[in-house]
Amino acid sequence: MNLILLSENDFTRENCVQLQGRRLKHVMEIHRASVGDRLSVGLLNGPLGKGTITTLTPDSVTLELHFDQQPPVPLPVTLILALPRPKMLKRVLMASSSMGVKRMFLINSFRVEKSFWKSPLLRKERIDEFLSLGLEQAKDTVVPEVLQRPLFKPFVEDELPAVIKDTLALVAHPTSLHPCPRDTKKHVTLAIGPEGGFIPYEIEKLAAIGFMPVSLGQRPLRVETVVPALLSKLF
Amino acid sequence: MNLILLSENDFTRENCVQLQGRRLKHVMEIHRASVGDRLSVGLLNGPLGKGTITTLTPDSVTLELHFDQQPPVPLPVTLILALPRPKMLKRVLMASSSMGVKRMFLINSFRVEKSFWKSPLLRKERIDEFLSLGLEQAKDTVVPEVLQRPLFKPFVEDELPAVIKDTLALVAHPTSLHPCPRDTKKHVTLAIGPEGGFIPYEIEKLAAIGFMPVSLGQRPLRVETVVPALLSKLF
Repeated sequence: MNLILLSENDFTRENCVQLQGRRLKHVMEIHRASVGDRLSVGLLNGPLGKGTITTLTPDSVTLELHFDQQPPVPLPVTLILALPRPKMLKRVLMASSSMGVKRMFLINSFRVEKSFWKSPLLRKERIDEFLSLGLEQAKDTVVPEVLQRPLFKPFVEDELPAVIKDTLALVAHPTSLHPCPRDTKKHVTLAIGPEGGFIPYEIEKLAAIGFMPVSLGQRPLRVETVVPALLSKLF
Repeated sequence: MNLILLSENDFTRENCVQLQGRRLKHVMEIHRASVGDRLSVGLLNGPLGKGTITTLTPDSVTLELHFDQQPPVPLPVTLILALPRPKMLKRVLMASSSMGVKRMFLINSFRVEKSFWKSPLLRKERIDEFLSLGLEQAKDTVVPEVLQRPLFKPFVEDELPAVIKDTLALVAHPTSLHPCPRDTKKHVTLAIGPEGGFIPYEIEKLAAIGFMPVSLGQRPLRVETVVPALLSKLF
């Protein structure tokens, strides 16, 4: 937690918040902070600044706020991700959020196990929790939008053409002979398949609406490794 | 497991292995394979090829081997990593191994908790297990060398100058104004600090022997995210 994320509910009056729970624990155990200390804070979907501790008890901490910065620039990317297995989903959401992705679609694919769609981790409050961990890591406040699309074909045919309009549409495909472009100045729509990759039918459907298959090299990588690797290569 | 890794101990005669345990389970439950199926195999620190199943029982699987490929090219990098917390160490070793890192030093730093050095995950057999998971993922066979250096100053002063000789020596430092170079054609020595970063004294010590501090941007990232991001940017 490099930043304490605040929401409107935390305010007791203008420029003053009172925190309990996980954030209090962090202030006491990690910062080992005391009254007068200044900590990095950010308002959810708002500015960044400092919070000065005015009271600290075992039950709550009160901070007097001063906001003076805007959140960091987002990555110009829309991520289309075949739903990963739940324990990997958590790490991929955190990593994507920390790197500045602001829009993601979690989609179905032939190699996504049906049971993954029933995971309790897909509830909005759990997803927001993982995204917030990424924001706290990266000192960002702008919560990414994560959309779930459990049907591949209607998503690709009916919704995706509008999503990729005016963007460079790429699909990660380890056997492609096109290397992933570097340092692109464009807005990118980046599709990443499940473990084992998209099946040929899915690659064809994506290619048919304008996706270019690109590769990072001959090594198949895990989704949690390939997401930061591709984002870092592209931007 | 995109590749079944074999060691000399698995051989019953020339070009024939018998497997039990985790690899048998994988053949039966993930591949759902039967006699006659051909699976990707690799000999530890040796060539890749195919194994044809000749017998399959609940107790063991026998494969007839044919090797015909060399392992993928390694990344020209030496990774110097402040020892991460144990659960992160596992993922970082897997990711580094899957991306083709062949030499790593796990080093101490002011912000590395002392208890991390006592973790049972630092035993050679556990480290080799995590490295092998990365090799199986990336269809590689060449086991990386992982060296542990629990004293920062003697390592940097006495050993590191020889390590970085004829390489581009970079240290990841979020506040540096130099962006991380892209697509370098050089052999790189890449140092990555702990959560919270190297302290100024450590950056100075590294800079004094020739390390250039470089940054991936203003977002502090977790070690497990920054390792694939930096490797992908560099190569």
